[in-house]
Amino acid sequence: MIRFSVPCGRLLADAPVFDVHVAGTESNVAVAVSRMGFTSRWLSRLPNNVLGHRIADTISGQGVDCSQVVWSDTERVGLYFLEFGASPRPTKVLYDRAPSAARNMDETTFDLSLISKARIIHLTGITVALSEGCSRLVETIIARANELKIPITFDVNYRALLWSHKECRLKLTPLLSKIDTLIVSQRDLSAIFEISGDAASAAKELHRQFGVPRIAITTGEQGAAGFENGHTVLAPGYPVEMIDRIGAGDSFAAGVISGLLEGNFSRGIQYGVAMSALQLTTEGDLFRLSRPDVLQLMASESVGQLIR
Amino acid sequence: MIRFSVPCGRLLADAPVFDVHVAGTESNVAVAVSRMGFTSRWLSRLPNNVLGHRIADTISGQGVDCSQVVWSDTERVGLYFLEFGASPRPTKVLYDRAPSAARNMDETTFDLSLISKARIIHLTGITVALSEGCSRLVETIIARANELKIPITFDVNYRALLWSHKECRLKLTPLLSKIDTLIVSQRDLSAIFEISGDAASAAKELHRQFGVPRIAITTGEQGAAGFENGHTVLAPGYPVEMIDRIGAGDSFAAGVISGLLEGNFSRGIQYGVAMSALQLTTEGDLFRLSRPDVLQLMASESVGQLIR
Amino acid sequence: MIRFSVPCGRLLADAPVFDVHVAGTESNVAVAVSRMGFTSRWLSRLPNNVLGHRIADTISGQGVDCSQVVWSDTERVGLYFLEFGASPRPTKVLYDRAPSAARNMDETTFDLSLISKARIIHLTGITVALSEGCSRLVETIIARANELKIPITFDVNYRALLWSHKECRLKLTPLLSKIDTLIVSQRDLSAIFEISGDAASAAKELHRQFGVPRIAITTGEQGAAGFENGHTVLAPGYPVEMIDRIGAGDSFAAGVISGLLEGNFSRGIQYGVAMSALQLTTEGDLFRLSRPDVLQLMASESVGQLIR
Amino acid sequence: MIRFSVPCGRLLADAPVFDVHVAGTESNVAVAVSRMGFTSRWLSRLPNNVLGHRIADTISGQGVDCSQVVWSDTERVGLYFLEFGASPRPTKVLYDRAPSAARNMDETTFDLSLISKARIIHLTGITVALSEGCSRLVETIIARANELKIPITFDVNYRALLWSHKECRLKLTPLLSKIDTLIVSQRDLSAIFEISGDAASAAKELHRQFGVPRIAITTGEQGAAGFENGHTVLAPGYPVEMIDRIGAGDSFAAGVISGLLEGNFSRGIQYGVAMSALQLTTEGDLFRLSRPDVLQLMASESVGQLIR
Amino acid sequence: MIRFSVPCGRLLADAPVFDVHVAGTESNVAVAVSRMGFTSRWLSRLPNNVLGHRIADTISGQGVDCSQVVWSDTERVGLYFLEFGASPRPTKVLYDRAPSAARNMDETTFDLSLISKARIIHLTGITVALSEGCSRLVETIIARANELKIPITFDVNYRALLWSHKECRLKLTPLLSKIDTLIVSQRDLSAIFEISGDAASAAKELHRQFGVPRIAITTGEQGAAGFENGHTVLAPGYPVEMIDRIGAGDSFAAGVISGLLEGNFSRGIQYGVAMSALQLTTEGDLFRLSRPDVLQLMASESVGQLIR
Amino acid sequence: MIRFSVPCGRLLADAPVFDVHVAGTESNVAVAVSRMGFTSRWLSRLPNNVLGHRIADTISGQGVDCSQVVWSDTERVGLYFLEFGASPRPTKVLYDRAPSAARNMDETTFDLSLISKARIIHLTGITVALSEGCSRLVETIIARANELKIPITFDVNYRALLWSHKECRLKLTPLLSKIDTLIVSQRDLSAIFEISGDAASAAKELHRQFGVPRIAITTGEQGAAGFENGHTVLAPGYPVEMIDRIGAGDSFAAGVISGLLEGNFSRGIQYGVAMSALQLTTEGDLFRLSRPDVLQLMASESVGQLIR
Repeated sequence: MIRFSVPCGRLLADAPVFDVHVAGTESNVAVAVSRMGFTSRWLSRLPNNVLGHRIADTISGQGVDCSQVVWSDTERVGLYFLEFGASPRPTKVLYDRAPSAARNMDETTFDLSLISKARIIHLTGITVALSEGCSRLVETIIARANELKIPITFDVNYRALLWSHKECRLKLTPLLSKIDTLIVSQRDLSAIFEISGDAASAAKELHRQFGVPRIAITTGEQGAAGFENGHTVLAPGYPVEMIDRIGAGDSFAAGVISGLLEGNFSRGIQYGVAMSALQLTTEGDLFRLSRPDVLQLMASESVGQLIR
Repeated sequence: MIRFSVPCGRLLADAPVFDVHVAGTESNVAVAVSRMGFTSRWLSRLPNNVLGHRIADTISGQGVDCSQVVWSDTERVGLYFLEFGASPRPTKVLYDRAPSAARNMDETTFDLSLISKARIIHLTGITVALSEGCSRLVETIIARANELKIPITFDVNYRALLWSHKECRLKLTPLLSKIDTLIVSQRDLSAIFEISGDAASAAKELHRQFGVPRIAITTGEQGAAGFENGHTVLAPGYPVEMIDRIGAGDSFAAGVISGLLEGNFSRGIQYGVAMSALQLTTEGDLFRLSRPDVLQLMASESVGQLIR
Repeated sequence: MIRFSVPCGRLLADAPVFDVHVAGTESNVAVAVSRMGFTSRWLSRLPNNVLGHRIADTISGQGVDCSQVVWSDTERVGLYFLEFGASPRPTKVLYDRAPSAARNMDETTFDLSLISKARIIHLTGITVALSEGCSRLVETIIARANELKIPITFDVNYRALLWSHKECRLKLTPLLSKIDTLIVSQRDLSAIFEISGDAASAAKELHRQFGVPRIAITTGEQGAAGFENGHTVLAPGYPVEMIDRIGAGDSFAAGVISGLLEGNFSRGIQYGVAMSALQLTTEGDLFRLSRPDVLQLMASESVGQLIR
Repeated sequence: MIRFSVPCGRLLADAPVFDVHVAGTESNVAVAVSRMGFTSRWLSRLPNNVLGHRIADTISGQGVDCSQVVWSDTERVGLYFLEFGASPRPTKVLYDRAPSAARNMDETTFDLSLISKARIIHLTGITVALSEGCSRLVETIIARANELKIPITFDVNYRALLWSHKECRLKLTPLLSKIDTLIVSQRDLSAIFEISGDAASAAKELHRQFGVPRIAITTGEQGAAGFENGHTVLAPGYPVEMIDRIGAGDSFAAGVISGLLEGNFSRGIQYGVAMSALQLTTEGDLFRLSRPDVLQLMASESVGQLIR
Repeated sequence: MIRFSVPCGRLLADAPVFDVHVAGTESNVAVAVSRMGFTSRWLSRLPNNVLGHRIADTISGQGVDCSQVVWSDTERVGLYFLEFGASPRPTKVLYDRAPSAARNMDETTFDLSLISKARIIHLTGITVALSEGCSRLVETIIARANELKIPITFDVNYRALLWSHKECRLKLTPLLSKIDTLIVSQRDLSAIFEISGDAASAAKELHRQFGVPRIAITTGEQGAAGFENGHTVLAPGYPVEMIDRIGAGDSFAAGVISGLLEGNFSRGIQYGVAMSALQLTTEGDLFRLSRPDVLQLMASESVGQLIR
Repeated sequence: MIRFSVPCGRLLADAPVFDVHVAGTESNVAVAVSRMGFTSRWLSRLPNNVLGHRIADTISGQGVDCSQVVWSDTERVGLYFLEFGASPRPTKVLYDRAPSAARNMDETTFDLSLISKARIIHLTGITVALSEGCSRLVETIIARANELKIPITFDVNYRALLWSHKECRLKLTPLLSKIDTLIVSQRDLSAIFEISGDAASAAKELHRQFGVPRIAITTGEQGAAGFENGHTVLAPGYPVEMIDRIGAGDSFAAGVISGLLEGNFSRGIQYGVAMSALQLTTEGDLFRLSRPDVLQLMASESVGQLIR
């Protein structure tokens, strides 16, 4: 997607210029994983026009392989318009997604034999919600990955404008048993899956009901919790001077994936908390910092403690 | 007026560009009342040059009827220069009013038969202070409105550069018995009319001395209090991340007027507190949000409680 | 529409900010007619979101009555992206119109009894081309106006991305006998109606074939020609330092309409040439100058000469 | 003065920011003379506020001694608003001078014993036109300088908004015999003194009528002519890509003064032509280049040829 | 390098912000070749700091493989400061190269076994001039490429601040017999190699003296000439509205290389002329357009004609 | 030095423009002393290019005498690049000092007979650390000043990139007995001189060991402490909304010097605390406010209390 935004205090109603940023949850994750030093590839469908190429060029400029992007001659780029709030004025977002090229993805869009080359595949609930074709695409990828025993990370990433809590639950429930790591905010966990309580007990309950091996739960300013093998690790949040709230969840997901790629889920939770804190302090949706910044922050305080 | 300002941290002493905003207390109120969905008309005198027309075009662009503005060929627009402070550096304002076209208004400037068409007439102490002619204009409007039984809202809006507390008191005292609703800050109430104490008791005392039927007192971050028929309503303030402090008082007045137009003074106090909080979070002097924003904020928390 | 553009020399591919302008051929004409001192009203259908309201607020800020705009809760604003060229690099335009709220207009969208209040109704080929519903809307308006003997000005305004020359000819031919004044560029006249030759003889031929009473033909830098009652008036163009080429055709149409409103078609051609020249020298799609600017330019040189 | 301007293509009617420049003919000359490597001092009267100090700080930042500026506590800075035109749209200037601190200068404002320290005193017609007090100040300075045999350069600098051609002629005629070098444009020479013809013959005629020893006449793009001791030197203009037309005349005057300070009036004419050409290529009213830039330009082509 | 520049009309002496662009002749060529659809790799040495990484990230964002860049912990990035002139004020460039990381390259810096993977190797005179180590690096690369029969394109790219014409001639003369394609401006050809005359005859003479098989000579606005096998092809220049003159020569070189990669040197000359014309119309040093833009321009007119 | 910075939230890695500020500890102090109404002169060595002159012009524009700056034709200006952090992301500074013209200063660079004209000479540890020549220059100045009994203020101003704590201690220890007033942060005092404890006791211990008559210790947000004649004065800090942290220490030093020039060291500590608080609220390294701002702040609360 392309994001058009105005600085805090300005309004979409009359600002003479809009800031332009490249956005989109999966591409954000791919960029942040690349900034952590790993190879990443992004699959999507983009219109073959200047805005579509701006997206691909920006993302490959951050080291992500975009060679498998499928180019469409007839559709458009999804847009969103963002006006930052200031208390008590809320942040406003206007989505302008339809009929984007990405919505018309389905299980035939990509050469899915590529899946065999991946070490981890990352998917999100947004794609499931976009269209029936997109939903089938996600299901097909999960099935193939399961066959090849390639682990899947899945970020629920609930968007109220795309579907209801109930629709989300119905669509995601059958997928949960097929994924390796679920990423979800405590708020969505409660609203969608009706599992409340503190993060540690909610993760256990979610695991009990759906059998997901690993669960990463973000708890806002408190930080995040990770569940694995019956144990929960808590990573406390950092105090943040927020500049731009967008993209923090994707940076968290990228941290979790980075930890998994290093064979250390707990460290992934810590990466995620640090990366999302850093992401909140820079303008734009993309994680533009790099591994040394993350390590430096993590070294500055002890984070994370094991709880039984 | 035209406001020239620099972003916080920059100085009027060397900033290479100045932001340009349309300003002026009565026009601010007219705009905010229009944004609340009511018809409003603004009477003023402007020079017939590009800056005068910028003011009128901007204000009519917000839905205010400016067709009765009187155009002058010989005078100038009032200006002010604004440098936002940051603690402990104070905000600086440099007024450059004289000899503005508005100062030369008097009781002959406008076709005052228009008064009969108004449901409410709003006046401010600034106009009284500008010049003898302006003062006579205010007195004439009040007299006509009294004859026609059209209620007057009057915002004291004390400006130390225009007159002393004592001059203000002497000029305003004879007017107080002729107006319907007085709007004043707790600080000005104390300094000008030497009535102190909490807002509720000060309002009662003011009512006792001058017989104003309705009194709206702003109490800064605490919110506002409204006095009517012997009762006081308190509307607590909202926590605010301030972007631009200018125009909040005018938005409050517009809220009070909106409530009066709906026949509900208490609701007007609540509108006013919500509108001034919102106004503090956007750049510029004009209230650029709209009724739904105000209602959404008011719905987000219960505000206002009746005290006997 | 909303236009997003970048200053000359910058690229849509990487510019960090886009300039935001309100655009759209009919609203441009309505604004320019208003700036010439006439009352104008614009009918359209807009989404009920911040961008839709930005369009309506901007246009009413220029004095156009937008009270009959119909608000839609489900669609989007049409956008276009503009990158100014510099020789030999061409200007690039990317339209993002579908599925805009305007496309879903049809003969039932508006209260067409309003037509009786108009002195002139202005329509364009773009609306005809947008959708079947829009096309029926145009036909219905023309029929009502014909009944009421209200003259119609019609600007062909050919857009190659919307329809072919042949489609345009087939759709417009039946309308030509029902309109009062046709506005068309010499290039489109040749390409669509296959009438070439100089402007004067082409106008005569067009009149002979279709019986349009008045024809205004723009001839680029040369200026324009007007045909009426068998006579042709030529208005030579002004040498122009071009700042922003968009909106010149709409300013020309507004000039023609202004002349017609004054009962002087020849003067309308001269207004149009002057207004389009001025429009080329300011940023944005809207005519932001005013009648005195137009008169001053026309007084600076003798323009227009009668030819038999 | 302070100048507020908008970039070419933007309008004072709606530009969200105005560029801020320090301006004023005498201070421009003082700055340009300083940039040529000479000591200069500027006498004026400024209000003791942030804008007044911005003017003085900016000018002393260019090396001009502002220690004799007189500070006023009650008046304002003169302003002007500038909108650059683009053919055929004219440049617009809105002056907002009254009641500036400078207008209230008179023969008692400054310690005129300073005159004895000057090698050249520069005055302009603008000061004469500002007010009776300013006019007396100019006369007094001329009288003192005449006593001390300190040469005076005088730039007519006609401003139609300040006085008529006839008023200008009546006021300046008695001064002409008391000055050393008159600087005037060919257009003003013709309009005010009704002396037409080419620059060389007009200079001779002016000399014949008024006895001014040296005359520097600017002839727009053609360059300038200098008259001294019965001879005329012509300095052809340079082809210029104009960025900002303001301040060129003041740079020319500074060039003439620089030549006189070097004892070479002809060279002064050449300096002036080069400096005004350079000045047209930078934003703002102040000459921000320096002596090496001027010398480099003059070396790039042979300029100036002696004519008998 | 990093370029800091100010828009035309602003000065390095006082502009409050500088535009930041990534620059450097070889990287410019690599980017432009990549934009033409070919694979390219850039070898250089950069400091391991935020500016060094900005360069590498920007260039890889344009599709260039930067994986062999060598990172230095102790040196700095070369900078240059650019102030665009406007006639008669010249463009000013201030180089700040020393002691850049690139200067400390030598024949041991890179893994030169990579050479075997290249289809063409591009080198420039700037690298030869930077330091003794850089010069040895160029010689070593040429020797290896000669062994492997990989053709070398060499752009003289004379910089007066780095060496004299004579030093340049002495250093380059021994290299000329070892390269496949020499790229040089007509002006440098005359000044360095003292070969004048029209481009066609100069190319023949250069070929006669040094035996370079292919020679591409740029002739400014006239376009360019290519010499191969005794024949000369001329590609006339395009009329250009210049926005930013920097990088045109590098775009020309990239065009030549693109033609060679397609086995068509004549077409390369035409690519080069078109690409340099396009490059002059966008801000910044990098060629940000793409192959379709180049082909569209070339299709718009017939360019190039064979001369015997 | 020249500082290039990006606004908070932007990154040096990709910001399209960098803000340009003049910087440098001694020049900052000279400017701030001048803004307090005292005469100041700055000695340094600058390259004779546009950036060198930008530094000198900016500083003399603030009233500092730069006539003794020595101009070098061969070196460069020191630069630094600044990216403001937001918690938990740290502020990043990249210095690019070498080989700056200032580094090549030594005891022969300036006409040191000027020393006799000074009332106070200010030096900093940064100059000592820059190079051996700079160190000898500092020693020479101290020796001359001691002979002439001109007091020296010395700001330790420790920079970890220039030297280690130990090197700093070894170099500065012999100087301490020769200076009048030492300015040092509590943190540096502890790290370099290994004197910890609260500011009052640390000052006493420093005095005991090295015999410095006056010591000014900054204690961050707490304010500062001054030691003189066995007594300590504490000046509490002001609560600050920080805009730009750079330059606060230099403003403190200027405050101390201003107090000394008024013969009141205690007042100097208070000036320093007020000036550094104000400096934190404006963009850029230079103190751009003036004496009345400082006095107004100091009058707003009682600061400083004597402790025995």
